[in-house]
Amino acid sequence: MSAKKSLDVLIGGKVYKLSGYEEEEYLQKVAAYINGKLDEFEAMEDFKLLNTDMRSTLIELNIADDYFKAKALAEKYEGDLSEKDKEIYDLKHELIGAQMKAEGLEDQVRQLTDEKKELLTNKAKLEASLEDALLGPTDDGDKE
Amino acid sequence: MSAKKSLDVLIGGKVYKLSGYEEEEYLQKVAAYINGKLDEFEAMEDFKLLNTDMRSTLIELNIADDYFKAKALAEKYEGDLSEKDKEIYDLKHELIGAQMKAEGLEDQVRQLTDEKKELLTNKAKLEASLEDALLGPTDDGDKE
Repeated sequence: MSAKKSLDVLIGGKVYKLSGYEEEEYLQKVAAYINGKLDEFEAMEDFKLLNTDMRSTLIELNIADDYFKAKALAEKYEGDLSEKDKEIYDLKHELIGAQMKAEGLEDQVRQLTDEKKELLTNKAKLEASLEDALLGPTDDGDKE
Repeated sequence: MSAKKSLDVLIGGKVYKLSGYEEEEYLQKVAAYINGKLDEFEAMEDFKLLNTDMRSTLIELNIADDYFKAKALAEKYEGDLSEKDKEIYDLKHELIGAQMKAEGLEDQVRQLTDEKKELLTNKAKLEASLEDALLGPTDDGDKE
């Protein structure tokens, strides 16, 4: 954890000394954001007519609205993420199934190829034997 | 788009009339959140010693901090979502590849099975012909 820091930020034209564990860059970003809100509101004629309490409450409400909108978005994305995780899980499952099926078929192809080879050898032998059988006796007959 | 509404919310013990397009439920949630912040700060001794400006600025900073934290989380989730989309795309691609491979192997198995069947039929025929050829001449020989 980083050490506690203290720094000055300018908000609404006033200097505030902030101390905390946040980085200066971050605190300046937050201060700039608040100054943006102040400028936004002070540009509205009606805002100038309000008392200090009302002004700060309106700004607090506006910032809180940004917070709840960002929070809702984060929650939506969180839901989308768990849906995608489920989809990924299902796809991986389906992929393993398809890969196992292919492996099983590869074994079948190997086995059938061996059987075919054996049958072709056997066929050649049978054809040779048949040729001998058909010619053989005639020759013997001639010899006697 | 829903109609513009006007309602009273209680913030910091004061009633504020808010008008906007948000649902009352939402505005009351936001008001309750701000009241929670006020209670949190007012529970701190040091806070009571600060002037109004400083108090509201600190509360604004605190709410803005919640906003930036929620925003950062939403951005992180957004990044995670696009990574998962890529993973899903890749898995779908891989799955199609595995399914096509299996289909090709199924065709090979079908073809090899037909060839095997034909070879077995052919083998039976050859064996029968060979048997005839081996027995045939002997019978003729006996007849003469």
